[in-house]
Amino acid sequence: MYQYKYLLDFTKNVFMKMGCSEHDSVIIADVFLAAELRGHSSHGMLRIRDYYELWRSGRINIKPVISIVHESPSTAVVDGDNSVGMIAARRSMEIAIEKAEKAGTGWVATRNSNHFGIAGYYAMMALEHDMIGICLTNANPLVAPTFSISRMMGTNPIAVAVPASKQPPFVADFATTPVARGKLAVSEKKGEKVPFGFVQDKNGQPSDDPAILKSGGSMLTLGGDRVHGSHKGYCLSAIVDIFSAVFSGANFGPFVPPSVAYLPVLDKKVGEGTGHFFGAMRIDAFQSAGDFKSKMDEWIETFRSAKPADGQEKVLIPGDPEREAEIINRRDGIPLVPAVREDLVSIAAKLGINFY
Amino acid sequence: MYQYKYLLDFTKNVFMKMGCSEHDSVIIADVFLAAELRGHSSHGMLRIRDYYELWRSGRINIKPVISIVHESPSTAVVDGDNSVGMIAARRSMEIAIEKAEKAGTGWVATRNSNHFGIAGYYAMMALEHDMIGICLTNANPLVAPTFSISRMMGTNPIAVAVPASKQPPFVADFATTPVARGKLAVSEKKGEKVPFGFVQDKNGQPSDDPAILKSGGSMLTLGGDRVHGSHKGYCLSAIVDIFSAVFSGANFGPFVPPSVAYLPVLDKKVGEGTGHFFGAMRIDAFQSAGDFKSKMDEWIETFRSAKPADGQEKVLIPGDPEREAEIINRRDGIPLVPAVREDLVSIAAKLGINFY
Repeated sequence: MYQYKYLLDFTKNVFMKMGCSEHDSVIIADVFLAAELRGHSSHGMLRIRDYYELWRSGRINIKPVISIVHESPSTAVVDGDNSVGMIAARRSMEIAIEKAEKAGTGWVATRNSNHFGIAGYYAMMALEHDMIGICLTNANPLVAPTFSISRMMGTNPIAVAVPASKQPPFVADFATTPVARGKLAVSEKKGEKVPFGFVQDKNGQPSDDPAILKSGGSMLTLGGDRVHGSHKGYCLSAIVDIFSAVFSGANFGPFVPPSVAYLPVLDKKVGEGTGHFFGAMRIDAFQSAGDFKSKMDEWIETFRSAKPADGQEKVLIPGDPEREAEIINRRDGIPLVPAVREDLVSIAAKLGINFY
Repeated sequence: MYQYKYLLDFTKNVFMKMGCSEHDSVIIADVFLAAELRGHSSHGMLRIRDYYELWRSGRINIKPVISIVHESPSTAVVDGDNSVGMIAARRSMEIAIEKAEKAGTGWVATRNSNHFGIAGYYAMMALEHDMIGICLTNANPLVAPTFSISRMMGTNPIAVAVPASKQPPFVADFATTPVARGKLAVSEKKGEKVPFGFVQDKNGQPSDDPAILKSGGSMLTLGGDRVHGSHKGYCLSAIVDIFSAVFSGANFGPFVPPSVAYLPVLDKKVGEGTGHFFGAMRIDAFQSAGDFKSKMDEWIETFRSAKPADGQEKVLIPGDPEREAEIINRRDGIPLVPAVREDLVSIAAKLGINFY
């Protein structure tokens, strides 16, 4: 088990050794550790190696100048200057919040960025400003539209954070596929099958083999098959892609660049880098923040009191599992699997720092 | 088969006979017929009886004064004055578009409204202004959150319309459940079973019986069960409910009033009427409208060229099926099932007009 503070400082030091400013390294480490604390280790320390390799291969800019390239009272397009995704994303969400202070709402589309960690981190930045936060991003293509076998979309997540008063905030943060890609990778490593409805083979036949992605298979959208509404998951994923990439001028759909250095740079570009989309809505642009937050308490209490199905203990509010994980991980420490620890020891040695 | 123009004029006359202004009746008829043309007869002429009965029982205001009760440069809250939903909804989307003209984007939360027909109608209003349109609404509670047996949410749809240039627009319009309620009703009338994953019984056990809703059962969210991501459908439906009702001050979740007169008015109110949420985003608040629309052409052409799975003819773009239906229905006429025709003949007689 590792203490939060130890991993936070280590991560900061990794990025400083790579040449990032202290300011940027603090932000990057904060996002990595937010993923670990919230129980999403698939977006935590496991990924440091990917960022290190992208840096080593010169595919990421560690001295970026983030800039607004177009704006209106409530909108902006941000160029991320090929930065580590967290840097472009955090600055973009700050701009959305600044816009919302004046115009009631703020909406920022970001291009020329990279993988930014967990979407929920940026949506939650709005909460302390009594705003609702929204964050979308596109991602490497692995997912096929309904009726297709072509990998056209990423797992394109949606995050929405809504403040309450006495209750903790409502925080939804989910991929628009039935399951995250990281969970498929875990099943594959264990040699396990997965439920039908997650992946299909290269001909579009149902499959329960998580390794099928390596032989031309693809992930399915939320809903799984057409009968169960996969076309709705396709719509959601497409909306995330259009908002993230077509608004901003980033690469869309099958042209989103890989977020790992072991995959080659794509031949065709239709824009700049990966795209994100951020929203901030000031509550009191709609009604008094106090009234709204009391009403959200009532909403949350109402849904928490829903009757559980047979064999279920309780009904959850979006954000509950992550908040419970954070309490445990802050208290007991954060576990790392041996392979991740070995990666970090190796990277540390190359950078002239230590990891125990 | 009925000609479009005949049904449009008839519907207008029904609402004028009920006392609506000609201005309002034209709007209401336009929304009803848009549903029929686009192949969503579940939201078309079939529903006129529900509106007629609500009017007869004095539960809907046919002389509404729609008003803005709160606003900022990019936002407004609208009170629908218990109008026929189409009237509050169309005016609210107009306000969102007006806000977007000045502030780049416009966002309107509407309370004290009623069932408004198809969400896609309002989202598509943005297209001719070179804007992206968004429309959400909550609805009668029939859907259980993950792990629960309580009916807490409606089929809470999401509609997003995005303009293109040479290609037709991208129009997504879908319930956040695997299947619309209307389709369950059709299966029930035919005495057919439905696939597992649509409904559960009163204890939360899987069911294939569409009639289970009459004996304490509930609809499931998009994803179906927890393994296949029903918690993501729950998040989506909850987000639609919060945006539609908590922003506006309408009734949320289980307190949304019934949209049919044969169900009693609920004892408990937590707000005013049904709630909607509308968004309009001016494309050139992000980049030149010409560039954006050309890029959307490229997006659509890319996805249209995705390789079909074995046995599939082609990959669809959201909005394709509805546009194809509209071509056929304008050319060949609109079919009505006998029960709907009988309803309309009976309503016409009571209002002193004709329906053949």
